[in-house]
Parts: sequence; C-alpha cells; structure tokens
Amino acid sequence: MTGTHIIGDWGTSRLRLFRISDGHIVARRDGPGIGKVGQGAEQALAETIAPLMADGAPDEIALCGMIGARDIWVEAPYADCPATMDDWRAAAVRFDWRGVPLSIMAGLACVGSDRIADVMRDEETQIFGAFRLHPQLGQGRRLIVLPGTHNKWVLVEDGRILSFRTMPTGELFALLRDQSVLGPKDMSGDAVQQQAGFTEGLARAGDGRLLASLFAARSMRLRAGRSSDWAAGYLSGLLIGCEVREAMALLPAEQDVTLIGDGRLSDLYGQALGAMGVVSRRLDGEVCALAGLGFVETE
Amino acid sequence: MTGTHIIGDWGTSRLRLFRISDGHIVARRDGPGIGKVGQGAEQALAETIAPLMADGAPDEIALCGMIGARDIWVEAPYADCPATMDDWRAAAVRFDWRGVPLSIMAGLACVGSDRIADVMRDEETQIFGAFRLHPQLGQGRRLIVLPGTHNKWVLVEDGRILSFRTMPTGELFALLRDQSVLGPKDMSGDAVQQQAGFTEGLARAGDGRLLASLFAARSMRLRAGRSSDWAAGYLSGLLIGCEVREAMALLPAEQDVTLIGDGRLSDLYGQALGAMGVVSRRLDGEVCALAGLGFVETE
Repeated sequence: MTGTHIIGDWGTSRLRLFRISDGHIVARRDGPGIGKVGQGAEQALAETIAPLMADGAPDEIALCGMIGARDIWVEAPYADCPATMDDWRAAAVRFDWRGVPLSIMAGLACVGSDRIADVMRDEETQIFGAFRLHPQLGQGRRLIVLPGTHNKWVLVEDGRILSFRTMPTGELFALLRDQSVLGPKDMSGDAVQQQAGFTEGLARAGDGRLLASLFAARSMRLRAGRSSDWAAGYLSGLLIGCEVREAMALLPAEQDVTLIGDGRLSDLYGQALGAMGVVSRRLDGEVCALAGLGFVETE
Repeated sequence: MTGTHIIGDWGTSRLRLFRISDGHIVARRDGPGIGKVGQGAEQALAETIAPLMADGAPDEIALCGMIGARDIWVEAPYADCPATMDDWRAAAVRFDWRGVPLSIMAGLACVGSDRIADVMRDEETQIFGAFRLHPQLGQGRRLIVLPGTHNKWVLVEDGRILSFRTMPTGELFALLRDQSVLGPKDMSGDAVQQQAGFTEGLARAGDGRLLASLFAARSMRLRAGRSSDWAAGYLSGLLIGCEVREAMALLPAEQDVTLIGDGRLSDLYGQALGAMGVVSRRLDGEVCALAGLGFVETE
C-alpha cells in the first residue's frame, strides 16, 4: 500500500489516530472517546488530527468504530450478515472533509438462529484485519471472540462473517462486583485467592445454574470462610464460564477458538475455554484493527 | 393465645410492630428498617414502641428479621436445616429489656445439594406461620417461593424446612434496568407493551441461554422496532423465567408451588410458573409473619 493515509479507531472510550506512509506507521495521536465527545466529534477530530496533518494532508482518512453511530456526526449504515470484507467496505460513508476524502466505516448487523437481532461497530474491523494477517482464519467455519465490556462472539466461514452475538457479561460483572450486595467490599488484591475463586466459579458454571449460583459469592463468605478476593474471582469465573458454554452452544464451530484482544481478560477467556477442552489462540486487537483499515503492511 | 404481646417484623427496609391482646391486633406502629438504623436499633425500637407501651408493658416482646444479624444489636444464631418450628424457636436469643422478656428470633442456615451454603432471616417466620395457618402445607414435600430483592426458594417436607436457595434476581433486574446500557431510559408506562415483553422474555428463558439473550433488550429496540416498555418487560420475563427453571431443577418437589408475598412481583412469578405448567397459590406475607411469631389467632 503506497501513499499517505490517516486511519483511526474511534470507540466509546478513546480515539487512536495513525499516520501511515507507504504501509508504515509514522506518527500516532490519541484523543477522547465518542462517549465523552458525543456530537462534538468533528471538533475533537480536528484537534486530535492537527499534529498529524503538519507534514501535509494525507491522500485519505478512514475511521472505524462508534464514530459511525447515529446522532454523532455522519451516520454509517450497518452491512447485513453474512458479509465479506468487500461488502463491509462498500457500505462505508465517504465524503470530503476539509479537502481530504474521508471514510467512516460501516458496522455489521445480523439476525441469529434464534431470531435475536444484533449489531456491532468496530469489532468487524479487527476481524477482517485478522483475515488479512492470518489467511488460514479465512478458511473453514470458526469462532472468534472479542472480550470486553460487551463481548462479541462471532461465527465466520471462509472469510465471511456469518452471525454474531453480543454478551454484556463484562458490564454485568462490574455491576455485581461494585454495586450489589454480592460484591466484596474489602479486597486485599490476593491473586492466589482470586484465582481459586475463578476456578471454583468456572467449575460451578458447569452446573448450568447461573442465577442459583450467584448468591454464593456472599453466602460462602458468611458461612464457609471464603475471602473477598475469592468472591471477586468466583463471580468472574461463574459469569465467564456460563457465557462460554452458552456461546459455544449457540454458534457451533469445529475449529479452535480465536481470541482477539489483550490483557488479563483474554487470559481468563482462554482459561474458561481450556476448562472445556477447547484450544484458543490470541491475536492483538490494535494490530488487527490497523490491518482491517487496510493501510498497514501485512507481510 | 392469651395475654398481651408486642411482636415485630424488622427487615432491612422497615419495622412493623404490633400490640396483640388475647390473639387480636389492637395497635400497630411502623418504624425505620435495619438498613437505615444499623447499630442504633435499640434506640429506634424504644422510640417506635413507646406508643404501644402506653397501655402498660406487655408480657413479652418478640422480634424477627434482620434485627438478629451480627453487629446490629444482640445477634441471634442461625438454626441449621433441616429445621422444625420448634428447632427454630429454641434457637432464639432471649433477654430482659427494660423489665420485659424480649426474644430475637433466629435465622436459618443450610448447605444445598450442590454444597453451596445459604442463609435467611425473616422468611422462615413467614414459612412457619404458613404451616400454622394452612396445615396441609405441612404435609408432603413442597416448594415455597418468597419473591423479593433476594428471592428465597424453599424446599419443605412434613413441616420441616429442608433446604433453600437465595436468588438475587430482583437486585440483578434493578441493576440492569437502571444502570446498564441495556436499560430503557424513556419508558412511557405502557402496560400492554411491558406484558408483551415479559411474555417474550419468558419464552426466551426456555432456551436456557440467559447471557446470550440479555443484549436483545437493547438490540431489538435498535433493529426490530421494540419499545422501551417492551424491553423492561423482556428483561423481567427473561430473568424470572430463567430463575424459575433453575429453582425447580435444583429443589424438586411434586406438589404445587406456594408463593408468599403480595403485589405485582408475585403475579409475575405466578405467570412464570404457569408458563411451565405449574399451578401456584398465593399467601399474604404479613399475615404469615404474624402467625409465625405465634401470637395471632389462626382460626
């Protein structure tokens, strides 16, 4: 890929902008997320991008993520699943912004086998990027999971995104830990206890009784000598274990599972999958997003 | 039952005190809950009870509920399940308070068939009261549910409480509705839409995928024309439906289910049980609590 481009991944919590010359990142700037700027997005873009324009306007600007949502700036549609990378690129909104062609990438929409409708913005960029970086991912029917506040479980086949499901498990965990009477209030940060709780929660998830197992986060502290750190790990293991079981029943795939994302959360999903005998591999989310926007060398 | 007694049901959210003469309620006073007064419980009792003492000190005072919890006033123990009414009464703490014998009733503790420990304070009073008021409830193996913020599902047999499980479904629902991105922010109070959502959530619960069905509360508004009122009903139906299924698998009983409690919430549990083909009957919680404290005519 030759020429100069500015590409951006603009989610709820932050904006990451990159200037790319001939397939290489030459500069980066971070800015505020859509959740903070809302309808002030164009102004925030102008301020964050200014240093990246100092060496001259790029040939093109491309943005993905929540910037394309309704009532923010210029809405980008949802492409319907099943969708190839070409289907998704064709659905972008393109317009001239201060003399430079600017694209806001589309989201994706699907209707599950159980007739539940769902949407994503941003994760599709990482998935299509993963196909570019790892061509074997574009072969066969596979399950990809992107852990986060609202996890996406994505069924892909031969380079197309077939269907997906959003699981708000991360948000649910934070609510239970921080704002419910189940939540431990006096954690000491004991990682051994947290891991013991996580393992016990994962095992409990195998019973298939999420609601009937939640109160144990409190009652096992009151009655069975468990610690607050144990309880936080237990809630996490129970929720993630139940989520993994539900997702793998809803979106069946025969291959190993691919995790896109980094940090502790992806470790926990890898553990939960491993406890079910499923091998997983991990890819870096930012690298995948850059490849999905198409302006970074994939060799 | 002859003589004069003052009995009280003192939960997290309120105190209800009754003066009983020869088995009849002659006066009532309400006061603040344990959640508000905390360690100021004795002072709050003195203030609320004063008007009920104006006609002379009673023979005895008996209090049940969270007043017996640790670090409030005088802790009452948990009686272990299986427990009869006599086992429970024997575990009360009794002492002299300002010249009157005062009892703080015990709670109950159990360990489930899945080895999860659990506790209750207050609901056991209503259950033992229900046995007194409805002797047939004390025969055979039965399932009793007390809907609330933390629902109790209770397996009883021949007048003993065998085991129970706390389900924090009410707290979870409130967190999701009021504090998550799933929560509808612009409800109009359309009861028809709410009922339609509740029915759809109940049906969805039959799939056994709680986490995979949650996000529909948001995505079906975005993509399938559902309303905010529908979404609130849907969350309620999904959670209650999943809870009922889990509870009936965990605590098997062949008889009809008895609901102790009033108001809209018990209606919803009756609907959820009915959708599974289970007949339920409803009893009034306050009437059962008074009978459980043993100083009200049961004829």
